[in-house]
Amino acid sequence: MDASKQTRVCVVGATGFAGVEVVRLVLNHPQLRLAMATDRKAAGTPISQVYPALAGATDLKLSLPEPDAIAAAADIAFLAVPHTASLSLTPDLIARGVSVIDLSADYRLRDPKIYEKWYETPHTSVDLLKDAVYGLPELFRPQLQDLAQKLASGQGPVLVAAPGCYPTSTALAATPAIKAGLVADTLVISDCISGVTGAGRTPSARTHFCHSNESVEAYGVAKHRHTPEIEQTLSIIAGQPVDVVFTPHLAPLNRGLLSTVYLQAKPDVTAQDVQAAYEDFFADEPLVTMLPAGQMPQTGSVAGSARAQVGVALDARRRTTIVASCAIDNLGKGAASQAVQCANAVLGYPETTGLDFVAPVL
Amino acid sequence: MDASKQTRVCVVGATGFAGVEVVRLVLNHPQLRLAMATDRKAAGTPISQVYPALAGATDLKLSLPEPDAIAAAADIAFLAVPHTASLSLTPDLIARGVSVIDLSADYRLRDPKIYEKWYETPHTSVDLLKDAVYGLPELFRPQLQDLAQKLASGQGPVLVAAPGCYPTSTALAATPAIKAGLVADTLVISDCISGVTGAGRTPSARTHFCHSNESVEAYGVAKHRHTPEIEQTLSIIAGQPVDVVFTPHLAPLNRGLLSTVYLQAKPDVTAQDVQAAYEDFFADEPLVTMLPAGQMPQTGSVAGSARAQVGVALDARRRTTIVASCAIDNLGKGAASQAVQCANAVLGYPETTGLDFVAPVL
Amino acid sequence: MDASKQTRVCVVGATGFAGVEVVRLVLNHPQLRLAMATDRKAAGTPISQVYPALAGATDLKLSLPEPDAIAAAADIAFLAVPHTASLSLTPDLIARGVSVIDLSADYRLRDPKIYEKWYETPHTSVDLLKDAVYGLPELFRPQLQDLAQKLASGQGPVLVAAPGCYPTSTALAATPAIKAGLVADTLVISDCISGVTGAGRTPSARTHFCHSNESVEAYGVAKHRHTPEIEQTLSIIAGQPVDVVFTPHLAPLNRGLLSTVYLQAKPDVTAQDVQAAYEDFFADEPLVTMLPAGQMPQTGSVAGSARAQVGVALDARRRTTIVASCAIDNLGKGAASQAVQCANAVLGYPETTGLDFVAPVL
Amino acid sequence: MDASKQTRVCVVGATGFAGVEVVRLVLNHPQLRLAMATDRKAAGTPISQVYPALAGATDLKLSLPEPDAIAAAADIAFLAVPHTASLSLTPDLIARGVSVIDLSADYRLRDPKIYEKWYETPHTSVDLLKDAVYGLPELFRPQLQDLAQKLASGQGPVLVAAPGCYPTSTALAATPAIKAGLVADTLVISDCISGVTGAGRTPSARTHFCHSNESVEAYGVAKHRHTPEIEQTLSIIAGQPVDVVFTPHLAPLNRGLLSTVYLQAKPDVTAQDVQAAYEDFFADEPLVTMLPAGQMPQTGSVAGSARAQVGVALDARRRTTIVASCAIDNLGKGAASQAVQCANAVLGYPETTGLDFVAPVL
Repeated sequence: MDASKQTRVCVVGATGFAGVEVVRLVLNHPQLRLAMATDRKAAGTPISQVYPALAGATDLKLSLPEPDAIAAAADIAFLAVPHTASLSLTPDLIARGVSVIDLSADYRLRDPKIYEKWYETPHTSVDLLKDAVYGLPELFRPQLQDLAQKLASGQGPVLVAAPGCYPTSTALAATPAIKAGLVADTLVISDCISGVTGAGRTPSARTHFCHSNESVEAYGVAKHRHTPEIEQTLSIIAGQPVDVVFTPHLAPLNRGLLSTVYLQAKPDVTAQDVQAAYEDFFADEPLVTMLPAGQMPQTGSVAGSARAQVGVALDARRRTTIVASCAIDNLGKGAASQAVQCANAVLGYPETTGLDFVAPVL
Repeated sequence: MDASKQTRVCVVGATGFAGVEVVRLVLNHPQLRLAMATDRKAAGTPISQVYPALAGATDLKLSLPEPDAIAAAADIAFLAVPHTASLSLTPDLIARGVSVIDLSADYRLRDPKIYEKWYETPHTSVDLLKDAVYGLPELFRPQLQDLAQKLASGQGPVLVAAPGCYPTSTALAATPAIKAGLVADTLVISDCISGVTGAGRTPSARTHFCHSNESVEAYGVAKHRHTPEIEQTLSIIAGQPVDVVFTPHLAPLNRGLLSTVYLQAKPDVTAQDVQAAYEDFFADEPLVTMLPAGQMPQTGSVAGSARAQVGVALDARRRTTIVASCAIDNLGKGAASQAVQCANAVLGYPETTGLDFVAPVL
Repeated sequence: MDASKQTRVCVVGATGFAGVEVVRLVLNHPQLRLAMATDRKAAGTPISQVYPALAGATDLKLSLPEPDAIAAAADIAFLAVPHTASLSLTPDLIARGVSVIDLSADYRLRDPKIYEKWYETPHTSVDLLKDAVYGLPELFRPQLQDLAQKLASGQGPVLVAAPGCYPTSTALAATPAIKAGLVADTLVISDCISGVTGAGRTPSARTHFCHSNESVEAYGVAKHRHTPEIEQTLSIIAGQPVDVVFTPHLAPLNRGLLSTVYLQAKPDVTAQDVQAAYEDFFADEPLVTMLPAGQMPQTGSVAGSARAQVGVALDARRRTTIVASCAIDNLGKGAASQAVQCANAVLGYPETTGLDFVAPVL
Repeated sequence: MDASKQTRVCVVGATGFAGVEVVRLVLNHPQLRLAMATDRKAAGTPISQVYPALAGATDLKLSLPEPDAIAAAADIAFLAVPHTASLSLTPDLIARGVSVIDLSADYRLRDPKIYEKWYETPHTSVDLLKDAVYGLPELFRPQLQDLAQKLASGQGPVLVAAPGCYPTSTALAATPAIKAGLVADTLVISDCISGVTGAGRTPSARTHFCHSNESVEAYGVAKHRHTPEIEQTLSIIAGQPVDVVFTPHLAPLNRGLLSTVYLQAKPDVTAQDVQAAYEDFFADEPLVTMLPAGQMPQTGSVAGSARAQVGVALDARRRTTIVASCAIDNLGKGAASQAVQCANAVLGYPETTGLDFVAPVL
C-alpha cells in the first residue's frame, strides 16, 4: 500500500463504543490511515491501554479534540460524540477544510425545529445543516456521490450525517415495501431489539451486567429520539408524511439490532409481490443480503460485520400485514461501518473498501 | 403440615423445562405433595440425577406415564407434554377420576377445527373439550370456580387447559384496554421476546448455546400456533372477532417473556384513561403488578416467580396507539406457576398458595 | 404464623446485591419479619422501586441506618455493608442489645493485625472481635450453638461474622481432605470463578455488561483480601499453618461461584479414600450435597438456592493431586443464605428454616 | 491480487466451529483461495445456507471429502475433523501431494502408544507421524521453517499437527518461566476456562443454551485428552518430564479460553525476574502480547482475533508461586488462526498474513 495516498483520519470520541469501532475499521482499512484519535478524559493514554484488544495493532496515544490539531493531522474526521458536541466541533472542522462524518444526531434532521423539540436544545449550526447529507447509502447514494464530486473538484470539505442505528434498520426493513407501492396505510410500527452496546459505554445501573443480563425490557416508549429521524426518512421515501410508532427494547447481547416492522399492505398484495419487491430493491446492494422467502435474519449473522440482512413475510390470513425484519450490528451498519461506507463514498473509494471482510460467524 | 390432607400430585413429562418447574413448585407447595413424576426415557432414574439442582430436595424416581399407576398415586395430574400426547392420556386419566391440569395445547382451542388446522392432526377428544376450562385466572376466574365447586361436590374430576406463554402475556397486556372500550380497531399486533427455555429441552441447532447466545431473531412469523389461541381469548374479551398479527422472537436468556402489544385507540383516549383502565383491571390481582405511569416491565423482575408485570404507554403524537408491555417468566406465569395457580383454584386453596414466594431479584 | 413470635429483622445496606438477597430470604422466612431496611442514598424510597422484582411482596420504605431506630425496630440486624462500615455500626448495635450478623469482612479475621495489613485500615473494634463467631456452620457449628445458648439465656446480643464467598466455597472443598489427614503438603491452590454479582452493584467499567459479557479474566491475583481469611480457616482445620495461593476469576453470569481446589495428597491415597472422606464429612449436612464419584458440580444447580454442591477427583497418574470443586451461589451460601443460616442457628430455629426451598433449576 | 498465485485451499469439515473459522480466515486471506469445503452431511448445500453470516461472502457449495477431488482442487487441506477421521484421510491426501494442516489430535502426540492409551484407538498412520510437525510457531518455528524449505524445494507435501486449544494456551503461559529456569518443581497445574464453542457444534444436553448459560462447571477432571499433549510440549521445553494436572471448565461465552497456570518457582525468584523472562520470550512474537506487570488478560480482548495475550504474577508471600495467565480465542489461536499461521509458515508467506486484522474489541 502506498501510504502517501492514504487518507488521513481523525476519530473524535475514540473510546466510546462507536468510536472504537471506527478506530478498528480504520486500522483494517487499506486506504485510510488512523492519524489521530481523541478523548477528553484519556488524552495522553495509548488507546490500547483503554482497549487491550488493540494491543499489537496501534501505539497511538489519545489526544484532545482541538480543531487546529485535527486539521493539521487529518483530511477527514469521524465524530463519534454525543449530540451537541458535534454542533460545537463540526463548524470549526469544516472551516479548517476537514470533511466530517458525523455519527451524532446533530445534522440528521432536516428541520432544526424538530431537532430542537426532540433534543431540547437549540440547533446552532443551521447553515451547515443545509449541506449535510444523510448517510444511508442504500437510500441516498446520489446525494453522497454529489459530495464525492464536490470533494474531488476541490470545492471544499463535506459533511455527512451518519444515521442512527434504529433508523437504519427500520428504513432498510420498510423502504422496499413503501417504494414498491405495496403499502395501504402511512402507519409504520417498528419494534426493535438492541444489544447493550447501544446504551453506550458510560457505566450505569441499566448497563450493569447484572441488570442487563437475563432480562429484556422496552425503554423510551413513545418518546425515543430516533422517532422523528425514522419519520423523516420514510416520509421522503413515501412522498408523504408517514406516522411512526417505535418501541426499542434492550436484550442481553453486546452487538446486534433487530427491527421488526409492521406495515398494512393493500389487500391484494401477495407474499410473492412482497418478496419480489425486496429482492429487487436490494439486488445490487453489496452490503445488504435479502434472505430467501421463509427465512428471517438473526443478528448473530451480522455481528462484527458491515452488513445488513433482511427478511420479509406477509400475514394475509385476516389483515394483510407485511412483517419485515432487518438485522444489523448496531455498531457496524448502525454506526461505524456505515460511517466508513459513507467516507468511502465521498472519498471516491469503492463503497465496500475495508468493509468486505467476513466477520466471525459465531 | 398435615401430610394426610395434602393433595397428591403426578407430574407427567417431568423432565421437560415446564415439567421440572411444576415439580419445583409442587415441592415448595404446602398443600401439594409430589407423589409421582414421569418421563418415558428416564423412567427408573431419580429426577435429581437429571437435574442435580433437585439433589437434597427429592429422592423420587421417574416412572412411566401409565394411567392406572397415575390414578393409584395421584389426585391430580399436571401434563407437561407435547400436543397430541395429552389427547392420548387425558381421557384415560379423567376416566379414572384424576383431575388434569394440561399444559399442552390440546384443550385450549374451543373449536376443534381450528385446532386441526393449526396443529395438523385430528382432535380425538372433542367430548372432553367441552368441559375444559381455559386456565387464565385473571380472565376466567368464574369458570375455574365452577370447576372447584364441581370437584368439591364430588361431581368428578376436572380438566383445565393451561394457556400458552405468548397468549398469557399478550392477553394480560391487551385485555384491560379492550375491556375498557378504549380500542378503535380489532387489529392487535403482538411483538414478543422469549427466553430460550421457551424452545424446549430437546437439543437442536437453534438451542445450541453458540447459536442462541449473542443473537436475536424472529421465528414462526405469521404462522406460530399461539396465534389462534390469542385470537380466541381476545375475541371473547372484545365480544367480536379480533385479528392478531403475532411475531415471537428468541433472545439469549433462560427465562422471561416480554410481550409488547400495539392497539389503535379511539382518537380522544388519553394516557390517563389508559393507565386508569389498566390499574382498575389489575387492582385486586395478587399475581399481577401494574406498574406506575411511565414505567415499563423488565423480564428480570419476574424470572423465577409466579408473577406478571404490566406497563402501558400511549403514543398520541400522530396516531393514538396504545403500547402495552407485559413481562412474565415463560416457565412461570407462562406455564408452570399458572398451572399451579389453576390447581389451587380448582382444589379450593387460595390462588396464591405456594406461589407468593419472592424469587431472586437478579 | 403467629407474627408476635417472629424475630424482627433489620437489613442494613438493603439495596446492595447481598443486602437485597437477605431481604428476599427474610420475606420468604416463616420466623423472621422484615421490620426495617436501610440505605443511605435511597432512604424514603420503597425498596420495591429500587428492585421492581419486590413489587407485590413488600411496601417497606428504606430508612437511614440510625442505631437507635434500628434498636427500636429490630431484634437482629444483618449488615450487608462494605468493610469499615460495620466497624462503625456494630458496636452501637451491640450496645443497644441488637444481635448482628455481619456480612462484611470486619469481624472475620481473628488477628486485627492481619486485618489491618490486608484492609489497610485500623481495626477499631478489637473487643468485640473476641466475641465474634465465624459463621460457617458446617465447620463451626458448636461455636454458633454457644451463641444460641448465650442469646437464649438472656446474656445479651451476639455477633456473627458471616464468611466471604470465596472462603466459604474453598473451605467446603478443602476441609474434608485436610480433616481426614489425606493431605501431604500445606499448600492449597484455590482457583475460583465468580459471577458478576460478586463485583457489587456499583456501576463501573468492569461491571458494564459489554465488558463482562463474553469474557473471562483473573483479577486480584496474589493479593485478593479473601486470601488471609481462607488461610485462617484452613489453618484452624489443619492444626498448622496452611499456605494459600488463590486466584479469582470473573465469568459472565449473574450468580454462582465455583472453587476448584488443588491439594497434594499422601502418595498412597486412593480415589476411594478421597470420595469416602468427603461423603463422611458432609453426610449429615442439610445444605451441602456431596456428589457421587465421577460427578462435578455446576453453579447453575445452586443458583438462587441456599445450598452448596461438592465433587472431588484424584489425579493419581503422576503426582497424587486431589482436585475438589465446590459450587455455591455467591449471594446465597456465599453471603445472604449463609447469614440467614447463622441467624437461624443463634436464634434457635432449625438451621434450614426458610432455606430449604427448591430454587429454579435453570 | 493475482489470483493465479494464490494457494488453493480445501477445508475438510467446514461446518464444524473450527472448520468454519478456517473458512472465514481463508476468505479474508490475500494469498489463500477457498477452492473447496467439505461436509459429509451437508454436501451439495451452499455453506452460506448453513451459516447465514457467510451470505454475500461466498457461494461455495459443500462437497464430499473425496481425496481425488480434494487433490484436484487444492494445494493444501485444513482438516477440521474429529480424531481418527484425520488418520483415515491424511495418508490419502499426502499420497496425492496435498499438504495437510491437521486440526485434529491424530498427529500431535509423538508416541503412538500414548495416543492409543488416551484416545483408545489404534494409531494407523505411524509412518506419517514421524514427519508431522507440531504447529505451535512460538515454540517450534524452526521445525515449521524446515517444512517450508521442504515444500519450496519440491520435496513433496508436508504435514502439520495444529495443537489443541488448552495445550496452546497452557504452553504459552508456562514456557517462558520454564525456559528461563525459574521453576523449582516439575508439577504444572493448569486451570482453564473455555467458551462453549470448545464443546463442538453437535447439539447435546451440555451445549443446550439453558444448560450452559448462567453456569460454570469443571469437566473431564483428571482425564482430559489434552493432558498428555500438554505434558509432551512442556517436557520438551523443560528437557525433563513434566507432570501436568489439568482442569478445564466451561463458561457461558461463545469464544475465549483462559489458562491460569501455577508453577512453583525457585525461592529467590522475584516478580521482576518473572516479568522480564516473559517479556523477553515474547519480545518478537507478532501474535502474542505480553501485558505489563500487574495486568492480566481477558478473553474478550482476543475473541475473534488470531492473537494471544499473556500476563503473569508472583505470589511470593509464603510459597513462591508463579501464576501465569494466557487468553486466546479457542477457535483462533486455539484452532483455526493457528492453523492458518502454520500454513503461512510452511507456504513461505509472512506468518501473520491474513491474521493481522483487528477483531471487534467488544
